[in-house]
Amino acid sequence: MTTTEPFRLTASEAQSQFRAGTLTVQDYARSLLSRVASRDSTVNAWAYLDPELVLARARELDQIPPEKRGPLHGVAIGVKDVILTKDMPTQYNSPIYVDDKPEVDAGSILTLRTNGALIFGKTTTTEFAATTMGPSHKGPKTGNPHDPSRTPGGSSSGSGAAVGDFQVPIALGTQTVGSTIRPGSFNGIYAMKPTWNSISREGQKLYSLIFDTLGLYSRSVDDLKLLLDAFQLVDDQPVPPEPFTVKGAKFALLTYPTPEWPEPGPGTAAALKKGAELLRAHGAEVEEITLGEEFLPMYKYHLQVLAGDGRIAFLPDYYFAKDKLDPLLLGHVHNAGKHTRKDQLRAFDELAAMRPKMDALADKYDAIIGPSALDEAPVGHSSTGSAAFCGPATAMHIPVVNIPGFKGENGLPIGLSAMSSRYRDQHLLRVSREVGKIFENEGGWKSAL
Amino acid sequence: MTTTEPFRLTASEAQSQFRAGTLTVQDYARSLLSRVASRDSTVNAWAYLDPELVLARARELDQIPPEKRGPLHGVAIGVKDVILTKDMPTQYNSPIYVDDKPEVDAGSILTLRTNGALIFGKTTTTEFAATTMGPSHKGPKTGNPHDPSRTPGGSSSGSGAAVGDFQVPIALGTQTVGSTIRPGSFNGIYAMKPTWNSISREGQKLYSLIFDTLGLYSRSVDDLKLLLDAFQLVDDQPVPPEPFTVKGAKFALLTYPTPEWPEPGPGTAAALKKGAELLRAHGAEVEEITLGEEFLPMYKYHLQVLAGDGRIAFLPDYYFAKDKLDPLLLGHVHNAGKHTRKDQLRAFDELAAMRPKMDALADKYDAIIGPSALDEAPVGHSSTGSAAFCGPATAMHIPVVNIPGFKGENGLPIGLSAMSSRYRDQHLLRVSREVGKIFENEGGWKSAL
Repeated sequence: MTTTEPFRLTASEAQSQFRAGTLTVQDYARSLLSRVASRDSTVNAWAYLDPELVLARARELDQIPPEKRGPLHGVAIGVKDVILTKDMPTQYNSPIYVDDKPEVDAGSILTLRTNGALIFGKTTTTEFAATTMGPSHKGPKTGNPHDPSRTPGGSSSGSGAAVGDFQVPIALGTQTVGSTIRPGSFNGIYAMKPTWNSISREGQKLYSLIFDTLGLYSRSVDDLKLLLDAFQLVDDQPVPPEPFTVKGAKFALLTYPTPEWPEPGPGTAAALKKGAELLRAHGAEVEEITLGEEFLPMYKYHLQVLAGDGRIAFLPDYYFAKDKLDPLLLGHVHNAGKHTRKDQLRAFDELAAMRPKMDALADKYDAIIGPSALDEAPVGHSSTGSAAFCGPATAMHIPVVNIPGFKGENGLPIGLSAMSSRYRDQHLLRVSREVGKIFENEGGWKSAL
Repeated sequence: MTTTEPFRLTASEAQSQFRAGTLTVQDYARSLLSRVASRDSTVNAWAYLDPELVLARARELDQIPPEKRGPLHGVAIGVKDVILTKDMPTQYNSPIYVDDKPEVDAGSILTLRTNGALIFGKTTTTEFAATTMGPSHKGPKTGNPHDPSRTPGGSSSGSGAAVGDFQVPIALGTQTVGSTIRPGSFNGIYAMKPTWNSISREGQKLYSLIFDTLGLYSRSVDDLKLLLDAFQLVDDQPVPPEPFTVKGAKFALLTYPTPEWPEPGPGTAAALKKGAELLRAHGAEVEEITLGEEFLPMYKYHLQVLAGDGRIAFLPDYYFAKDKLDPLLLGHVHNAGKHTRKDQLRAFDELAAMRPKMDALADKYDAIIGPSALDEAPVGHSSTGSAAFCGPATAMHIPVVNIPGFKGENGLPIGLSAMSSRYRDQHLLRVSREVGKIFENEGGWKSAL
């Protein structure tokens, strides 16, 4: 009998072993650290990782008597380096914040820690999670674990890569346009952007108040469920929730209208086709839809609001050290796009007016299935890829899960996005569990292998 | 000839003296500190104040050569103790955070410091700026400087009181319902809540993403202008901006419909009447208006969204130390109001839909003049007073300035709110300057005496 190396376990599987007494958090942490040690020079997913600190925390967790352990006991979590952690630096991949170490936990981190999680290290990010140039600015570039010559996506580059490479079972990202879902697709893992403002963003670098959302990575839906429960995301639902089966379910297969959005590449087009076929083969109804007239300016408005928000968000850093800011961020502060307040407000208000309409559209289906990324992860590290297909869920505040399961022309992973209306996060997770089983079993890519 | 003691100067007046070489920042700081020393046991406005630190920073500022001094050189600023300051603790008036000192500046603080401001100390607040019980939990209650048996209002209690008492010329507050404007009225000073999300909220304790706004206190419009310029608030306006004169201007005099809002008390009712008379006497047109049908659920929706947001914002603190949270905040986390997600979303979306309508209403006038508070500051410290009249500007994201100038039946100050549409902050300031001259000269209360 061969035993799975602990680093390959999902967090939920590791927890089963902690409960059974067949694995300690320290041994688990050692296994993860050995995986990191063997792979770090290839993937470069970490902005900060102190093995001694990890082992010390693991020891503390092992010393907690079983009856006092939290629901996330021993769950190892990588944290995108734009989220404050009391015991580690937060550097934002910015030359301004090298080795900066505010002694405070973000709200999300405090919730995770108090529930027993093992905060493992800080993962690489593009500058302030706001540029598209692959990290890091000061060291080797983060590589896609499935082909290090390619980008893992961004801006949550290290979180996506570390989970995809079994260096940690769970990681936190953020999403302002497509920074969580795109790396989910590129690294072949589950990625979730919950409903906007359903998890505290306190202590998470600000780019846009109305778009920024904490993102979650894992290699299993069970692990996402652990997190949603700790963050107390509850739907308006009967308890226990309604069961969900693909058989008899109704899905929309969404493609985005051009030229407002780009055309999907061949890999994504094939994944959409295959995904619909699989769902139909399992007894679901799949209706092909696109976004109607009323939604067409959505992406343009999204980028307009973002420009206005970036102007505000980066002003303090600009005053502090404008010579160390990326030109894109300088452009925000200088209002290089010459956006008027009137244009900004129209964009802000029109997006707000679209949200209940998008909910109404989503509520006609068990979930909307759409593309997560243009195609496989592109070659190179100078761009983290297009976020266009991830924008709508962000702008509309709706929850979205990247479900892995497909492969592109070069054998790299491609995922599809499942979306529902706002605050149906737990429902969406139930749908994603069942859809994920089908996609991973029959689509050609498995997240956990 | 008597010389004004430096602590009585506005920040702009102090700056004139710095430029003329007739006052150093150190001497100015000593004067402010002496005022604090003589008044602190009566007013109790400070949660943290280290005279040595203030004097050390003042010395550093004096050493900067004149040509390298920032636009806010030597401007002394009190900071509400829910905003992170790198060199001082941030305690939120919460037993959880006693002596807590994250080594990081909020975005607003970084902007002020890099422009030359003297960050003076931390001012008292209600717990997390989210309860209505007068601070502090661990020491004497903050008193209204004009009658210490009365509340200075809240949640920005210490900021309003310190500026009203000449202990500091400028202070920062925050507003989620009425936490900046109400203390402005109660302490007889200028208070401004700029357009929502026009100044970075990074590092400012989160209660509600969609409502929380940084607030500004001063005893002169010139001082507010200094701050707006440092924060780069610019309107869509020709430069130089249009001049503004009360003669020929058009104002709305707004009263809120009952029973959705309360009736103003006698002092506020008299101030509204007198304010309208004064504006008319100076050649303005004043149209009496109330909010129409479409705005009636505004305050109900505001409180619904707030409950949902509080549920998210205080969850981390709840996990960390639920026994140390105020019952109001526990109620948020427990969803004591049993708000459904559907209700929350309807409230969120309906408020969003009202915003362009409120802009359109405001744009019919040079400014809307309305009540800031129910009446004079109430007696006692167990309640910081009703925020009902401040809610609309917060919910609608529009800028509002409390203009002092009136007195109530007990001789305590009463201000009125001037409001315009979103992102007309500089316009509103020009209007407030002219209106403020009239109210302060002829209304019965002067902020700077």
